[in-house]
Amino acid sequence: MRNFIILGHRAITAPGLSLNDLPGSGGRMDLLIRCITSAFCLSHDIRRDVEVAIVMLGPGDPPKTIRFLGNELKYLNPDERSTGALIRNALVKYSAMKTKDLFFIDKDRNDGQKDSKCKSNTLTGEITSSPGIFISDNCFNEVLEHYSGRSTMICLHEAWADIHRGHEILTGDDEVTFILSDDKNFSSEEEHTIDKHSPLKLSLGPKVLHTDHCVILIHNYLDRKRN
Amino acid sequence: MRNFIILGHRAITAPGLSLNDLPGSGGRMDLLIRCITSAFCLSHDIRRDVEVAIVMLGPGDPPKTIRFLGNELKYLNPDERSTGALIRNALVKYSAMKTKDLFFIDKDRNDGQKDSKCKSNTLTGEITSSPGIFISDNCFNEVLEHYSGRSTMICLHEAWADIHRGHEILTGDDEVTFILSDDKNFSSEEEHTIDKHSPLKLSLGPKVLHTDHCVILIHNYLDRKRN
Repeated sequence: MRNFIILGHRAITAPGLSLNDLPGSGGRMDLLIRCITSAFCLSHDIRRDVEVAIVMLGPGDPPKTIRFLGNELKYLNPDERSTGALIRNALVKYSAMKTKDLFFIDKDRNDGQKDSKCKSNTLTGEITSSPGIFISDNCFNEVLEHYSGRSTMICLHEAWADIHRGHEILTGDDEVTFILSDDKNFSSEEEHTIDKHSPLKLSLGPKVLHTDHCVILIHNYLDRKRN
Repeated sequence: MRNFIILGHRAITAPGLSLNDLPGSGGRMDLLIRCITSAFCLSHDIRRDVEVAIVMLGPGDPPKTIRFLGNELKYLNPDERSTGALIRNALVKYSAMKTKDLFFIDKDRNDGQKDSKCKSNTLTGEITSSPGIFISDNCFNEVLEHYSGRSTMICLHEAWADIHRGHEILTGDDEVTFILSDDKNFSSEEEHTIDKHSPLKLSLGPKVLHTDHCVILIHNYLDRKRN
């Protein structure tokens, strides 16, 4: 299983995401969207052994976490606009749930989960937006905790040890969670939060890359290891 | 120098590209756009040693070739919609030139080029759309000829030899041209056209990937070789 946690520092957290202005008023939502398609899309196929959690801290009602589970995911296309519509739909549903008491939407899924963490594959208070897409108000640290209990955590920076020179570290079949940021670096406080989960610190190469491009390189590295 | 020739079998070739429907009526223009951003965009920087030629064969007025030259390129943002607007602008300008005798747009640039090929970095009949972006009605074979005279040609397929196992082939400093297709495979006729330019035949790994993801892997491979 390959998991990706991606922090969107300015990504909008209320309904009203404009599909015509994903980078601007969306708070670099375009980049988060490309991370999702990089994580899941193969040529004419979807990677089923992948989970992505985007943690959004932008204006509206932060934090919001939207999780995409490959083994349940439907309606994902590779273009930005259609994935933007899935995210907008999730934000609208969460807002409607809060204001109109629509908790019944996921009563079964969340039963008994309100006060327990890390006991299952469900985040606390998470509701279903569409098949394989779940939204909650979990913060960055809560999402990290959810994955750190069950997987090897990995954080990336171009200054750290090259992933290609650490062949013994990852087998390709481990459950791994990569922690990534959008176009802004992690703040010192966020780095401190990440460090509590003792991640491996690795690099993907000599250039400073877009986050969605890093996701592609990670998959290719692990595909080769598995092969 | 790294060049990418990307064939868009259904990409629209007339003005009227809808930025709200790049995959559908645009003929998978979303994929070609992501190839462009994958080829040029680094985090907060542009790769200047890159050229991309997208050869479009879809409805309207095929063929059309739009070339993007990294060392002259301006106004490129990483989101699909804004790059779509650059392509739409190029198609509109070319159409206006044909119908309104606007050849003066690039008189200096194309002077003496109308009947000569491969003599300079300019394709026959190419006009400037915006800084670093040029459009012409050159076909696939003409674009291949333009690059094959000056660079090592490389074609990719998952069944061929792994690029990582051919360390002696590319140094990272060679001028190379990668020939890629959109979501459709090359036809037998197109393969025959490509074979005339004797390309190296390589693979990027075990999975069948989106074209824009291949571009990312190629860059990372060459970045490491150069480093």
